[in-house]
Amino acid sequence: MTSLNPNMAATFAPPVMEARRWLEGVEFSADTPLLNVSQAAPVDPPPAPLRAAMAEMVMEDDGTHLYGPVLGLEALRTEIAETWSAAYGGKISTDQVAITSGCNQAFAASIALLAAPGDEVILPTPWYFNHKMWLDMSGVTAVPLPTDQNLMPSAEDAARLLTSRTRAIALVSPNNPGGVEYPAEVLTEFRDLCRTRGIALIVDETYRDFDSRDGAPHTLFQDDWDDTLIHLYSFSKTYRLTGHRVGALIASPNLLAEAEKFLDTVTICPNQLGQRAALWGMQNLGPWVAEQRTEILNRRDAITSGFPALTERGWHLHGCGAYFAYMRHPFAQASNLLAQRMVRDIGVLCLPGTMFVPPDDPTGPATLRIAFANIDTDGIETLYKRLETLS
Amino acid sequence: MTSLNPNMAATFAPPVMEARRWLEGVEFSADTPLLNVSQAAPVDPPPAPLRAAMAEMVMEDDGTHLYGPVLGLEALRTEIAETWSAAYGGKISTDQVAITSGCNQAFAASIALLAAPGDEVILPTPWYFNHKMWLDMSGVTAVPLPTDQNLMPSAEDAARLLTSRTRAIALVSPNNPGGVEYPAEVLTEFRDLCRTRGIALIVDETYRDFDSRDGAPHTLFQDDWDDTLIHLYSFSKTYRLTGHRVGALIASPNLLAEAEKFLDTVTICPNQLGQRAALWGMQNLGPWVAEQRTEILNRRDAITSGFPALTERGWHLHGCGAYFAYMRHPFAQASNLLAQRMVRDIGVLCLPGTMFVPPDDPTGPATLRIAFANIDTDGIETLYKRLETLS
Repeated sequence: MTSLNPNMAATFAPPVMEARRWLEGVEFSADTPLLNVSQAAPVDPPPAPLRAAMAEMVMEDDGTHLYGPVLGLEALRTEIAETWSAAYGGKISTDQVAITSGCNQAFAASIALLAAPGDEVILPTPWYFNHKMWLDMSGVTAVPLPTDQNLMPSAEDAARLLTSRTRAIALVSPNNPGGVEYPAEVLTEFRDLCRTRGIALIVDETYRDFDSRDGAPHTLFQDDWDDTLIHLYSFSKTYRLTGHRVGALIASPNLLAEAEKFLDTVTICPNQLGQRAALWGMQNLGPWVAEQRTEILNRRDAITSGFPALTERGWHLHGCGAYFAYMRHPFAQASNLLAQRMVRDIGVLCLPGTMFVPPDDPTGPATLRIAFANIDTDGIETLYKRLETLS
Repeated sequence: MTSLNPNMAATFAPPVMEARRWLEGVEFSADTPLLNVSQAAPVDPPPAPLRAAMAEMVMEDDGTHLYGPVLGLEALRTEIAETWSAAYGGKISTDQVAITSGCNQAFAASIALLAAPGDEVILPTPWYFNHKMWLDMSGVTAVPLPTDQNLMPSAEDAARLLTSRTRAIALVSPNNPGGVEYPAEVLTEFRDLCRTRGIALIVDETYRDFDSRDGAPHTLFQDDWDDTLIHLYSFSKTYRLTGHRVGALIASPNLLAEAEKFLDTVTICPNQLGQRAALWGMQNLGPWVAEQRTEILNRRDAITSGFPALTERGWHLHGCGAYFAYMRHPFAQASNLLAQRMVRDIGVLCLPGTMFVPPDDPTGPATLRIAFANIDTDGIETLYKRLETLS
């Protein structure tokens, strides 16, 4: 029998798939149907006009079914460059934009082109577990950067973690799993640190379109940014295209020439229908996206306004925004066991903090991530009622 | 400015994209339009009934737009397991099948789970360049296994290349770039070698449905195969779904549990429409696929029957089958320069042998790959007329 790559064997299994397995064999009553707040994923399909446009592409546009450029459709790259330039008040050109098969792939490509085995990448904790997994299987050390009580990382702390092997700092804002929106100044401080030290700053803005702040969330694109900044984006949440796998990687043309090698060998090209759908969405769904944002912000308000009832029971809300609330629970039981018990006892599936921090981090057993964007305000009310019964 | 992962920097750029750039600034006359035989890709979309089925899925099936399991749709995995079991006269179960975002990704996943940096994988030469690229960027050494005049590899030769770092031998049959169909006994010899030495045998059968032989091409699935064999497949060519990125990875459930980590971090899941289309194709397009095979075999016949005119001019046909003919040309000019000159002089874009062998392999400059499946028999006649004028 063949043996395994030790880096792969040492990588943990996909948390979302592990959590799904906790549902096996559990029966949910009609009174208490499963409330699934485990994954950041829309539960509804794209709006009808986008579905109709996609059906027409499938029938009429042969290119939908054929290979395309490795770095993505020129028209979509240009649309992103122009829209981003306007939104961030900066200068982003078509040759600084690549399309990927989802935002995870954009991260994987970024790391593959920056870091060799033995190198280090700094991730604030709690971290997005797929980032940690990719670093582990690549033989790259994920260096945890602890955050404060509001899950805010500090560039000053990060500076103390830098070594000659550090290749990048990777931030997610609005944050997964924490929901925190990083202030523009925090991002600027990280950019300045990275620029001074000649390393990359990766900023994953998957949840950007659900930021509670109006206007540009940062000023990073307002200079000759591409010596340092790598920006990641996803079309999955904004246009409900999770099943189609479309993301973006925005970086210097030199880096994208390297990324082209990775993307070619891993998928040849992003899927063509998803790319066309993303382009159609950008050109036609502005008002609809604005409505979706309002709805998500309403859900966020429902989370924060309902939380005091839990505070009385010893819970604490560390962060709340984008799709997520990150909470400290009051129980002695560790979160990985508590989360499994919650499925059986109160019909709630969420992810434990242990999935978002190193094994030796004491915050993991004490915290839970609630992906509240998947349930409406009635669902949030139900969620709180059930959490209040937990003992 | 950030520096690069040296493994990535040392990896060559995607050959198909490089060849596309040779077209820039070249004008083709109406008499001599471009004949593109560079990429193994259907030029037509899927048949109308499949397109109609896909359009309906987009409109009616919400799951088409949402995340699905990392290892793919259960129904497609089961359909593959049953169809393969019958076709190969072996036993393949659903939990031995994973769906990937194209067959390149199936290869990438296989290597990621088997080989760490510093390990070795044996590839017969000429090799499929994306395999070589992925090994390079993974820091895994691609050990070339030279083949004979008919591009046939030998397990006996491979045995002499094995070291304590060898993790796998990867074969492609029918072969890309050589077109050669490996006899069942050759595959058995490789399997026996791999089994004895405790390493994996990866067999990429992307072009299986265009094999000229009737019946199962090998007997590898007829025993407890999954201790050694990893089988790769693509839906891209058979159902003309290149733009949708669907492939398969067939291996032991233990290996697939590791592959799940890789696939989760690289794409989260294969795209949902492509998977549904592949399933629909398997269930409904048997007769149509048989017709396509006949057409490809006719084109293959046109290549071999027309070749003697080139033989007189000093050409030699090393291999011909699946989508490809691999030829030795009679010119002093190296193939990488010759191929670029062919674009300008005779309006033919093909890939030079230098893209398929190590830099120090003397067969590279002397050979060309013609992806003949992209042109019909008239096109093949035109191709030969143009090649005959080359001097």
